[in-house]
Amino acid sequence: MSLYSKHKDILDKAVKALHERTFFAAYPEHPSPSVYGETADADGRKKFQASVGKKFEELKQENPKSWIGVEESPYMQTPLNIQYPAFGVETLVERGLTAFNSWRKVDVNDRAGILVESLERVKERFFEVAYATMHTTGQGYMMAFQASGPHAADRALEAIAAGYEELNRFPKNVVWDKPMGKFNITLDKQWRAVPKGLGLVIGCSTFPTWNSVPGVYASLVTGNPVIVKPHPGAILPMAIFVAEIQNVLAENNMDPNICQLAVDTYDKTITKELAEHEAVKVIDFTGNSHFGSYLEGLSGKAVFTEKTGVNSVILDSAENIDKVAANLAFSVTLYSGQMCTAPQNFYIPEGGINTPDGNVSFDEFAAKLVENINGLVGNPKAGPFVLGAVQNKNTCERVETIGQLGGKVLLESRSIENPMFKDARIATPAVLTMDAADKQKFSSELFGPIVILVKTKDTKESVALAKDMAIKHGAISCGAYSTDADTKEMIADQMSLAATPVSFNLVGGIYMNQNAGFSDFHVTGGNPAGNASFTNPEYVIKRFTWVGHREPVKA
Amino acid sequence: MSLYSKHKDILDKAVKALHERTFFAAYPEHPSPSVYGETADADGRKKFQASVGKKFEELKQENPKSWIGVEESPYMQTPLNIQYPAFGVETLVERGLTAFNSWRKVDVNDRAGILVESLERVKERFFEVAYATMHTTGQGYMMAFQASGPHAADRALEAIAAGYEELNRFPKNVVWDKPMGKFNITLDKQWRAVPKGLGLVIGCSTFPTWNSVPGVYASLVTGNPVIVKPHPGAILPMAIFVAEIQNVLAENNMDPNICQLAVDTYDKTITKELAEHEAVKVIDFTGNSHFGSYLEGLSGKAVFTEKTGVNSVILDSAENIDKVAANLAFSVTLYSGQMCTAPQNFYIPEGGINTPDGNVSFDEFAAKLVENINGLVGNPKAGPFVLGAVQNKNTCERVETIGQLGGKVLLESRSIENPMFKDARIATPAVLTMDAADKQKFSSELFGPIVILVKTKDTKESVALAKDMAIKHGAISCGAYSTDADTKEMIADQMSLAATPVSFNLVGGIYMNQNAGFSDFHVTGGNPAGNASFTNPEYVIKRFTWVGHREPVKA
Repeated sequence: MSLYSKHKDILDKAVKALHERTFFAAYPEHPSPSVYGETADADGRKKFQASVGKKFEELKQENPKSWIGVEESPYMQTPLNIQYPAFGVETLVERGLTAFNSWRKVDVNDRAGILVESLERVKERFFEVAYATMHTTGQGYMMAFQASGPHAADRALEAIAAGYEELNRFPKNVVWDKPMGKFNITLDKQWRAVPKGLGLVIGCSTFPTWNSVPGVYASLVTGNPVIVKPHPGAILPMAIFVAEIQNVLAENNMDPNICQLAVDTYDKTITKELAEHEAVKVIDFTGNSHFGSYLEGLSGKAVFTEKTGVNSVILDSAENIDKVAANLAFSVTLYSGQMCTAPQNFYIPEGGINTPDGNVSFDEFAAKLVENINGLVGNPKAGPFVLGAVQNKNTCERVETIGQLGGKVLLESRSIENPMFKDARIATPAVLTMDAADKQKFSSELFGPIVILVKTKDTKESVALAKDMAIKHGAISCGAYSTDADTKEMIADQMSLAATPVSFNLVGGIYMNQNAGFSDFHVTGGNPAGNASFTNPEYVIKRFTWVGHREPVKA
Repeated sequence: MSLYSKHKDILDKAVKALHERTFFAAYPEHPSPSVYGETADADGRKKFQASVGKKFEELKQENPKSWIGVEESPYMQTPLNIQYPAFGVETLVERGLTAFNSWRKVDVNDRAGILVESLERVKERFFEVAYATMHTTGQGYMMAFQASGPHAADRALEAIAAGYEELNRFPKNVVWDKPMGKFNITLDKQWRAVPKGLGLVIGCSTFPTWNSVPGVYASLVTGNPVIVKPHPGAILPMAIFVAEIQNVLAENNMDPNICQLAVDTYDKTITKELAEHEAVKVIDFTGNSHFGSYLEGLSGKAVFTEKTGVNSVILDSAENIDKVAANLAFSVTLYSGQMCTAPQNFYIPEGGINTPDGNVSFDEFAAKLVENINGLVGNPKAGPFVLGAVQNKNTCERVETIGQLGGKVLLESRSIENPMFKDARIATPAVLTMDAADKQKFSSELFGPIVILVKTKDTKESVALAKDMAIKHGAISCGAYSTDADTKEMIADQMSLAATPVSFNLVGGIYMNQNAGFSDFHVTGGNPAGNASFTNPEYVIKRFTWVGHREPVKA
């Protein structure tokens, strides 16, 4: 049985799910022994621990010029000393171009089958990926498992399904028969979905697989070989994905260089040289706005970016303000605000927030938020695990010195103890207040656990500010609290014009940071935060070109 | 009955046709009295003649700052003296932005209904559009009728159908229900297809409607108001389309400024000012490569271009070389080579072309081509009508002085008499021969009736040259003649990599210049000739952004 036949059912389900957009997941998000096996967690931990300090020898890329790697664990603040094979840019490109001429001729259905099979192999290693993610990004265990394992695999499946659907959306061959009166003109026509060329996927340090695998699989399913260039600080999670893709390719007598890992170090990055190479036609990037905008400006390439943004919360009115404060406290604490969807600027009218129990003033809400943050981070059974660790030293520095930005500091960032990792790099959320007039100060992304409560004239001004931030500086998410239908529609309409999805009135166990595969579109373009678009048709369509040939049918 | 209900059937048929890609046309291409009415032709001619020398007063755009217009007829080489209302860029943009806020809220189905209705209105004026096209572009009567009337309307319908399908491809609302073990998280989700903003459609002088209406209707169906900026030399055909769109809008109590005509003159063009305006988010352009590439470089805009290219014919082997020569002679003569799909460079192996009747040498084929061109242009019942007239004086100059390019001139361009228009600007095809080593000389588009026969080492070199031209300078069409299956596949594969559709072995009444709505994709990107893409999903998807909002379902 071909891998396509083996996985056709899940592909069809995934396509259906993409269009229904109700809840769907192919990979269970709960790290449960009943799903993944009794020893899966312990085995994964051991495999991760065994890889520390060694060469990563799983890749099928021959003759490395050296072995390099500078990852370190934010939980231990020590180097992992894992070494990966390194290659020159010309070697990577040459091998990629050779692979292009075989991979582009593999039928899309067979490509899809191979790619789903690779996800099934990674599934067996989700716990290993989880520990690799924890000790490169600083994510908490649960997030590391979910985001880098099942959620990433679902996003990858989504990309495969989108490509599989799109390439099958037009016929491969038809007979075109045009009546001309006394005779017909009859042509054989054929269409080919021609892949653009080499793909390059540039990873980030905080979500090494979730943000990278959609681009990898979207390029691959559309016939473009991929060079995967992870962030120097978070290589291992993607190395495992690439190794499993190469395993399945090799088992099917295909060139493993269809998907290559390209590793570099901080002091000698190869990203620009790769990106500017004439043969590289598709680029997926997650990271800072400066580099992302440079990539978007490269001509003759399809570029998909997820850059930075300033995410807003608009507070107008609420059913239960305590539940709101608790929900938002969790949102800003989760992974120490290092999510692209984490909120930063909270807009609160100077007249306060209306609730059924009366008006809650700006200061009262600020106090409630601070109290909830303190309660969460101070809870030894929750705080350390929700916070995780801080990936980059610079983030700690930014949070510690945030008072210099201006405004009034209501809550200073501090460190707390992680019972499992005494040396973990930790920063709890800082909370500041400012006036709308301080716009200049809160008009850029302050990456990390930083909350700015902005006092506005009214909700109209709050929305105008949130919209303006999104249009000028980008936004990936927005939270809004209102009990008034007209106000909600005004917010929905105005934030739509800034291409920003709004989560309304979230309380309880669902947060604005969260983004569900097969349902929530992610970074669909329309504001400067990027145009990655997990996963609408644009995400795959720009990776190939339709070309049609025709010839008269022989009489 | 709503216009959507009225036209739902044709919309559904058009969507089906887009995917089946077999022959489909909503608007009959034959200018037959039995289809269009006994007096339709005469009425259309009279209406056109009545509009000459007058103000075009049909538009619903108020308070023009002046009345301008510098069109002239290539058939009479005299000004038409038709005056159109002119507006400042700020006025056009302000009115467009006001229209944006109403048009974007009209449901896509209703937008589609309104737009199809406008095509039905234009259908009543196809003959008027045909005469307007003849006397601005120089096209022959039959081409002017077909290309500017039914074929343009079918391409417009195609764009409407593609937008209608794409915006209905994902649900507007769903309930998302995620099982969490002990409880479910249940969210109301909604998605909005948010139009990008103002559209600008920049027309060309040779195909004023065929190349412009797809962009107009694609932007409109996706919710973007449009400013239509025709070429100063070919305004009237588009003015009629815009007037009918405005009529249907006004009848449905909508702002006519949803589709505005913006007219300028050669000595004071407004195109750059419009294109660079911050509010303009979508640009459709047909014209020269220099300006097209400048537009593609504007940031923050979705830009669709159809620029110039170097179209090739690859001659390897043929069943009947006389039929091949006749077919290609027609292709280069049709509308004096002023089609974006007209062939220019013919690659012929030095060893000649194999046929069942023996080898045909380079010189023999050249002689046959020249003979067929002379036969066609010298036939008074065919030549003048196939050639039409030359839109732009500069084209004549280029053709007359083509000998200066180098190579050997086998056939000089000359003028012939058009029995209906004694003063018509006419240039018959010129034929030159060159060697493959003269590559530099045949490496750019030589717009007009110019054929260069290039002697190559073999078909492999022919294909390499055709591919290289397409990749470096763009190509919109390619003709190839081969009776060998492997050679055909090699050509199909290699030209696919240059994103160039190949017409194989065309003889008889079908030509490589032709491009059928609902079947042949046109300029799908992938080479420098442009990325307009009539009409694959990319053509509509880039004109809007998916934005999703969500909120917990109330218990």
